[in-house]
Amino acid sequence: MITLLTDFGTADYFVPAVKGVIFSISPEARIVDITHDVTAQDVHSAAFTLGACYHSFPAGTIHLAVVDPGVGSSRRAIVVEAGGYFFVGPDNGIFSFIYARESGARVFHITNKEYLRHPVSPTFHGRDVFAPVAAHLSRGVKPEHLGEEIHDCLRFEIPQPRLIEAPGVIEGRVIHIDRFGNCITNFTGTDLRLDGIAPATRLYFGGREIRQFGMHFAEAANRDDLFAYLGSAGYWEIALWCDSAAKLINARCGDEVVLENPQSQSPNPQ
Amino acid sequence: MITLLTDFGTADYFVPAVKGVIFSISPEARIVDITHDVTAQDVHSAAFTLGACYHSFPAGTIHLAVVDPGVGSSRRAIVVEAGGYFFVGPDNGIFSFIYARESGARVFHITNKEYLRHPVSPTFHGRDVFAPVAAHLSRGVKPEHLGEEIHDCLRFEIPQPRLIEAPGVIEGRVIHIDRFGNCITNFTGTDLRLDGIAPATRLYFGGREIRQFGMHFAEAANRDDLFAYLGSAGYWEIALWCDSAAKLINARCGDEVVLENPQSQSPNPQ
Amino acid sequence: MITLLTDFGTADYFVPAVKGVIFSISPEARIVDITHDVTAQDVHSAAFTLGACYHSFPAGTIHLAVVDPGVGSSRRAIVVEAGGYFFVGPDNGIFSFIYARESGARVFHITNKEYLRHPVSPTFHGRDVFAPVAAHLSRGVKPEHLGEEIHDCLRFEIPQPRLIEAPGVIEGRVIHIDRFGNCITNFTGTDLRLDGIAPATRLYFGGREIRQFGMHFAEAANRDDLFAYLGSAGYWEIALWCDSAAKLINARCGDEVVLENPQSQSPNPQ
Repeated sequence: MITLLTDFGTADYFVPAVKGVIFSISPEARIVDITHDVTAQDVHSAAFTLGACYHSFPAGTIHLAVVDPGVGSSRRAIVVEAGGYFFVGPDNGIFSFIYARESGARVFHITNKEYLRHPVSPTFHGRDVFAPVAAHLSRGVKPEHLGEEIHDCLRFEIPQPRLIEAPGVIEGRVIHIDRFGNCITNFTGTDLRLDGIAPATRLYFGGREIRQFGMHFAEAANRDDLFAYLGSAGYWEIALWCDSAAKLINARCGDEVVLENPQSQSPNPQ
Repeated sequence: MITLLTDFGTADYFVPAVKGVIFSISPEARIVDITHDVTAQDVHSAAFTLGACYHSFPAGTIHLAVVDPGVGSSRRAIVVEAGGYFFVGPDNGIFSFIYARESGARVFHITNKEYLRHPVSPTFHGRDVFAPVAAHLSRGVKPEHLGEEIHDCLRFEIPQPRLIEAPGVIEGRVIHIDRFGNCITNFTGTDLRLDGIAPATRLYFGGREIRQFGMHFAEAANRDDLFAYLGSAGYWEIALWCDSAAKLINARCGDEVVLENPQSQSPNPQ
Repeated sequence: MITLLTDFGTADYFVPAVKGVIFSISPEARIVDITHDVTAQDVHSAAFTLGACYHSFPAGTIHLAVVDPGVGSSRRAIVVEAGGYFFVGPDNGIFSFIYARESGARVFHITNKEYLRHPVSPTFHGRDVFAPVAAHLSRGVKPEHLGEEIHDCLRFEIPQPRLIEAPGVIEGRVIHIDRFGNCITNFTGTDLRLDGIAPATRLYFGGREIRQFGMHFAEAANRDDLFAYLGSAGYWEIALWCDSAAKLINARCGDEVVLENPQSQSPNPQ
């Protein structure tokens, strides 16, 4: 099984060309689209989306991810073996969530021209480099045969929440904004447990104070106010009932969010 | 075979997470997208779209439909067995067209936790409830094993045309507006037969009188005027040549449409 | 394997109805979407997109292409056998790039009602004519059995670059504009070789002089100026760094582009 994640859109010939090349090499391959609607060249967004669903797929799945502003430059093409999966794409940080979550990741620099489609178009490595490599992996080629193992692959840091003041006050960041305008923070269920919410628990974000917390929208008593819930990707998200929270407060990725949670002063919040 | 119909969009990790879960349980499953672009939380539109194509699929197909404003609330998760197909989704009326068309539908309330993904995210039943249930059905699990049969499932009424005055005058409704702005009415080929159109046949809609009827656009003599044709879903549709009829008259689902057809006064229209 | 290229969009029931019909006839078929986002009724754009990727698929692939402003009129339904592939769709020029590239194309007029879905909706030949025909082809039905071979199929001319003045000056056209606003010309790597670019080489387009040429964006020294590169479809494309070239100069398909390349005066450019 091979998944595809790109910023190619679905209106042009780019995605079917990639699929056609895969099927030409590996007729029995099964291809699943993750998305082709990543904002053009937004490697961070692609990394988040891949991080949020790669583990839902069966072991052995090959994840092909191509958001590649540097196509044609000297950035390397790589294969990553981690967590029982393979990842194929450019060495530009797109696999940062994988590196952060899976220990023992091995990274190989694709240099063996035998596994590429020729001639290699300088603007379309998705079709000519990554697609054939993924197809060959699906037929049992070992990553070791694609090129040398490397240890200096590019990764961007995924911001971690940090204590900033008194106990119970931590600073986080928005790490993703989805298509509905929900702002995904880097606070997890460990930073704020569902059963650790107190009347005084607050989030401060974009000049606003958020007092509504819960598991889902149906719990938001005041639907005109921002609401925080523990989202399906494992992070607390800030949302607005049937509207875009991001638009309301003009939010961007990287924005600061502060969590004040008196409960967390206790070492064992009940 | 499993089809998917959601309002998740195609830009985020939601759809691939659903697919990954299905493949993890049922590696041989074949998944076909109906659409993921239903207007957010528009259960009526989802119900129409499912009703317009479920029967094109092979017998035994499992249709997974998740447009679910009440996710996390107390609305039930159900499996419907009807017309040789299975339907999996929330009990919020999304299967209303199925109930209306297929006699002998059986509905089961999903309560058996054995067939769910754990932990169940309160905001993502598509991934954690409906996907694993559909996957298990595709492997032969019987609906009876998922929970009790119920007889009070939610359905909304699909409006039926009705006689309002003199013979030959019937009142209908717009039941769907498609992406081209065509207004699908609830008049079928029985209410107005293609061979029963007379010079005096009229539709009254949005303050306008429609005099052009036919089988397809090529028959519209006056392309600046509204045109009615018997659409591929089996209903009469009101359209404007290369433009949006819905926009022209600011139409909405539920709007009244009146059909005046002198021919139908005859018990046996030729 | 069957590919689909339409202007149906992905929000309505049209595409899944086509797929359901195919699977009902040919349960083992593998369906790959090329795109469903062709601009409504833009046969030229569909023809370009098909021409840019049909050859990436394995031999024997059946390409179903339905952009069909004349549905319901007298335009013919055809099957084309060319280059080791089959093509199914309306006879309206949508296969013009195939005819231009593949010699020995044979074209058959679909008239055998045995292979259609009944009743045939006058507005949805995608579901009722082309889908079942593609499915039957995938099961081994010969094109000869679908109808008579014809020799007068509709094709539009794909403009060829032509010498307009002094040696080294040729006139071309924009033949496609992609979703990023890149303008694809009809100049190929033969008209302007990558190793034949001289300091004096110029493109004139939309009142502007283009001086930057290369293999990929990373080579554009001045990112505020238009840049030309040899694209992955085999044509020179005119682009703007992270922006839409088409928007900048209000470009349209068919616009004239002039290439001045002193190098090409030599019969054997080195």
